[in-house]
Amino acid sequence: MKTIVFLLFENYESLDVFGPVEIFGRIPSFTLIFASMKGGLITNSQGAQVQTEKLDTLKEIDVLLIPGGKGTRLLVAAPLFIDALKNAALKARYLLTVCTGSALLAKTGLLDGHKATSNKRAFDWVTTTSNNVDWQKKARWTVSDHIYTSSGVSAGMDMSLGFLADNYGMDFALDIANGIEYIWQADKESDPFSF
Amino acid sequence: MKTIVFLLFENYESLDVFGPVEIFGRIPSFTLIFASMKGGLITNSQGAQVQTEKLDTLKEIDVLLIPGGKGTRLLVAAPLFIDALKNAALKARYLLTVCTGSALLAKTGLLDGHKATSNKRAFDWVTTTSNNVDWQKKARWTVSDHIYTSSGVSAGMDMSLGFLADNYGMDFALDIANGIEYIWQADKESDPFSF
Repeated sequence: MKTIVFLLFENYESLDVFGPVEIFGRIPSFTLIFASMKGGLITNSQGAQVQTEKLDTLKEIDVLLIPGGKGTRLLVAAPLFIDALKNAALKARYLLTVCTGSALLAKTGLLDGHKATSNKRAFDWVTTTSNNVDWQKKARWTVSDHIYTSSGVSAGMDMSLGFLADNYGMDFALDIANGIEYIWQADKESDPFSF
Repeated sequence: MKTIVFLLFENYESLDVFGPVEIFGRIPSFTLIFASMKGGLITNSQGAQVQTEKLDTLKEIDVLLIPGGKGTRLLVAAPLFIDALKNAALKARYLLTVCTGSALLAKTGLLDGHKATSNKRAFDWVTTTSNNVDWQKKARWTVSDHIYTSSGVSAGMDMSLGFLADNYGMDFALDIANGIEYIWQADKESDPFSF
């Protein structure tokens, strides 16, 4: 794997992106790409403006990460965005979603038949976006074939480390967690925020 | 408190900034400002380009957050940067540093006589930046008058929640941690990365 693409849109949630960015950015062989539908500056829910490339110009995507955030509430009903996301997702070897990013992926149909989770405070809304997904209420993150989905915001970091552990081994993931002094919750079944 | 300023510079560490951004961004009464010496786009260690305002144009700073990262290695020896940081820090009611950000603040002299900590893998280097600081090797974060300093990267999130607990109460901080499904390490004395 060489490239990880972070899909940005207006009002995505900061940590959904920059938690995983911190983790994948520690691997010298990875190139991190920030992309959006139109390219240019994208503003997140916390007011940070980040420069992006245009999504449809990217040829190779090994990992596509789809964050959540307030912006997803509009985008689930935006067919052009969902089509562009589907096109990009079909190019990717692995799909990772954080928080309500799973609602966006559900709308493409590519989550059909897969296990998936989301933020527990938004769970009732997220599950309305598709009846064909095997929604998991109690999970820090889920793995289903090539698709990883995490619970809310911070869970994206635990999932990213889990993804690295699955692909490169536990020691590799632990070394990154230790480097950023992160207390990794490494058990994907343990979900203290499910109620 | 109304404004929190995140001081960005080339090769700051992503999560040092965007962990606290996620937390402070949850408080409706706070305005988050991204600033740098010259303004414009600043690139972090993970390649994200973020738009900034010019630091010396800011009139009111309630909280100033100084991140760490590779960029600090050059900046401790850049007098113009250290002077600008000192001017901004003198305007602020509270100073927060993450990771090797404490080395930058140490260079201004404003950490003299205060307790402070930093990333444990960079600790030996950081402590060379000042003999007048009461460096704490074992601490998730430190509090000394109006100055908070945290250990490496992820510890900035624990410190930010601790800062909010000190100012607005434990329930306030816990509600934010729960909202982002973050497993808060709320004890500033507990430091699993000190060795």
